[in-house]
Amino acid sequence: MDHKKDIAIIGGGPGGYLAALRAPQLGRKAVLFEEDRVGGTCMNYGCIPTKYLLHQTKILKEVRETKTVVGGAGIGLDWAAVQTGRLAVVDRLVRGIEFLLEKGGVEIVKGRARLEEAGRVAVETPDGPKTYRADAVILATGSRSASLPFLAPNGAEVVTSTEALAFPEVPKSLLVIGAGAIGLEMGSIFKRLGTDVTVLEILPGIIPGSDRETAARLERTLKKQGLRILTQMSIAGADVVPGKVTLKGTCLKNSVPFEYSAERVLLAAGRRPNSEGLAADGMLTLGRGGFVAVNDRLETGIPGVYAIGDLIGGKLLAHKAYHDAIVAVENACGMNRTVDYRALPIAVFTDPEFASVGLTQEEADGKGIKVRAGVFPLQASGRALTMDSLDGMVKVLADGEDRIIGAHIVAPGASEMIHELALAVSRGSTLGEIGGLIHIHPTLSETIGEAALKARNEALHLLN
Amino acid sequence: MDHKKDIAIIGGGPGGYLAALRAPQLGRKAVLFEEDRVGGTCMNYGCIPTKYLLHQTKILKEVRETKTVVGGAGIGLDWAAVQTGRLAVVDRLVRGIEFLLEKGGVEIVKGRARLEEAGRVAVETPDGPKTYRADAVILATGSRSASLPFLAPNGAEVVTSTEALAFPEVPKSLLVIGAGAIGLEMGSIFKRLGTDVTVLEILPGIIPGSDRETAARLERTLKKQGLRILTQMSIAGADVVPGKVTLKGTCLKNSVPFEYSAERVLLAAGRRPNSEGLAADGMLTLGRGGFVAVNDRLETGIPGVYAIGDLIGGKLLAHKAYHDAIVAVENACGMNRTVDYRALPIAVFTDPEFASVGLTQEEADGKGIKVRAGVFPLQASGRALTMDSLDGMVKVLADGEDRIIGAHIVAPGASEMIHELALAVSRGSTLGEIGGLIHIHPTLSETIGEAALKARNEALHLLN
Repeated sequence: MDHKKDIAIIGGGPGGYLAALRAPQLGRKAVLFEEDRVGGTCMNYGCIPTKYLLHQTKILKEVRETKTVVGGAGIGLDWAAVQTGRLAVVDRLVRGIEFLLEKGGVEIVKGRARLEEAGRVAVETPDGPKTYRADAVILATGSRSASLPFLAPNGAEVVTSTEALAFPEVPKSLLVIGAGAIGLEMGSIFKRLGTDVTVLEILPGIIPGSDRETAARLERTLKKQGLRILTQMSIAGADVVPGKVTLKGTCLKNSVPFEYSAERVLLAAGRRPNSEGLAADGMLTLGRGGFVAVNDRLETGIPGVYAIGDLIGGKLLAHKAYHDAIVAVENACGMNRTVDYRALPIAVFTDPEFASVGLTQEEADGKGIKVRAGVFPLQASGRALTMDSLDGMVKVLADGEDRIIGAHIVAPGASEMIHELALAVSRGSTLGEIGGLIHIHPTLSETIGEAALKARNEALHLLN
Repeated sequence: MDHKKDIAIIGGGPGGYLAALRAPQLGRKAVLFEEDRVGGTCMNYGCIPTKYLLHQTKILKEVRETKTVVGGAGIGLDWAAVQTGRLAVVDRLVRGIEFLLEKGGVEIVKGRARLEEAGRVAVETPDGPKTYRADAVILATGSRSASLPFLAPNGAEVVTSTEALAFPEVPKSLLVIGAGAIGLEMGSIFKRLGTDVTVLEILPGIIPGSDRETAARLERTLKKQGLRILTQMSIAGADVVPGKVTLKGTCLKNSVPFEYSAERVLLAAGRRPNSEGLAADGMLTLGRGGFVAVNDRLETGIPGVYAIGDLIGGKLLAHKAYHDAIVAVENACGMNRTVDYRALPIAVFTDPEFASVGLTQEEADGKGIKVRAGVFPLQASGRALTMDSLDGMVKVLADGEDRIIGAHIVAPGASEMIHELALAVSRGSTLGEIGGLIHIHPTLSETIGEAALKARNEALHLLN
């Protein structure tokens, strides 16, 4: 006999579990299908453990860079203790989500689920197959690292970030394919631990799709710190032998062939949606790259079936999945919500951090917007000087009516600072409003106000 | 013969120098009178050098607290190098302001100035007395540490923060009078350096005037870290002998007398305006505590004479002085601006930091507002867990129409995070807008969104 719920959710990552937590607040009974632990890639193998390793290793960088420190030469990290700590952090968060789901009356079913037809989900559980009926189904199975045609993870020399987090020991050398968030964060972690890191990126700059001027500012800073970042590197082949991997290709800048070897290589160039086998053949419309097609209410072609998060593409970010989750589950409950990604911020947790919201200069120019840009460098910030962190900048973009349409930051804590500007983009605040907002002195956020003033040639702590 | 300018500014601290930088943007010729270096207490002896010392010493705390660090037992700071670094940071900033003033065509006159009558300022310079005439005069002479009736700075055992920053060596023991921003920051600096620190506060909690629940959260955290904070301690007398100071008084909680001794004592209980001798007798109306009385356009009783910053009281903060400066100089240029302190944020740069904007719960209750409060603890934040910084919280207050009227944070980087909420208070954003804003995962700023949701009993990562 079929089990009956109001809402069935396939996938217990950030999108899926958040939809499941919201459902009971709206008076709905939900079931959540997950074959691994809840929390998804983000909590178990991605954002969370990466941030833990970034935080742990940052102290090594700081001790080395602080000139007034004495007795710091012998400092290091106990890698085994870091691994234990990483697992403890993840475990605490996963158990926290399980606790909240339980308190919300959400049934968690362990197993691989599949949409059989509108409103009907079949799941293979350890206790055998089961079937659930639900008024609405939310698909949230996420994504996984993409392989290269000639290079697939082998659990040893060739790894994804999942395995890199759990390296039995810190490698002496590491190649990273891809200079996006994952590649730069993992590259930073191992660089701080003493690994010889080389990041290879096929595009002309790091963080593809981001504001070019701002990304270039970060790229210069990371290179200055000793991270080897090579752009326009087209990889054509790989040799893998035990303990060593060699990547070969051509530099697109000068057509000169290259060859790099290291103990390990990390695949961090793109992700693929987990859309295979998710539904009976032909039920779901898949777009480019296999992402599930949805409308702006996140409904698939099948009424009552929603898809969210990485599975539908766009920015593959946990907080984008959170937003999707709320929109989808509220629509499943009869509300009429549409997604709004205009103020969707992103961050890369290097040191300094990179954060961005709204349009890049290139996107704004491409739309024909008459852009006013204001850039304020950290060199002119008192707070940055007290932190010895002068490598960075804030860039604020406004449209012809002075409304802020985008902002891009390289700074320590940029991932937090950006939210003032996310609110500004979301609410349509003007340069005058942000320039006139009282910022605490001395903070890095003062540079946001100054960048807004600079766009009007009225910066106070910088020549205009 | 009198020199002639459009605007004469007495005092080159944050308020004064910013007014002087803004004046030429509005097409006005300005003269700035300062007897010390420009930058005022904030840049030379206050906010800036304190933040430098907080940043330098924070690394010691982090190394001690990070359990995975090995080889960190012998770490310390070269105090002489820290002193050199502090002076270099201040010097660079002061020279930066001097450069900007010069580029703006502002005349800087070294000397003590005095308002003789409306539009006329006399100044004692190293080259003898001079007189300036100006259409408008802005008074910005700031404030200084208040002494106690029985305890005045003596340059040795009894000091203000100015001398404490420049202690020839780190004292073994330190008493701090006052648990406001200065006392807690200086106390934190020396505690990290190994000094035995005792903070004595006469009021029942730290950071007088702040949201009680939030301040209590920080107080518990700082005590847990080993900072000795004693409240309701009424000091009645002091014995000072070479190398030792003893404070005596009564604990108001239990009427039990106390006596504490240390090598040094820091006066950090209140500040007094530098209003004496600033104008000819009887010209200026002084309010309680000697602060200069102004209207909401910052004009004194004398037409064309404005006063700003610490000199007029309110929150004695550099960024409050910045705001005042813009209002006053724009009014001096014929605009009609009034001050607006509703979204004036404050921060205390302990670790974790404390930051606040808008009304406290006590103030809102006192106004009879039907307050909705949402509190979200850092214990439920994934980002906080990856940073091992679970001691903190975000509290968001809204009025009966769900508009955010105040926010109070204890968290690492709270001084930056608060600006999202400063904008929210400034623009009248609602709980729904902040709760629905997409925050980057994982960041501490997510807890702002969650606190807003919690106020509506719709928190997602916390039971409601």
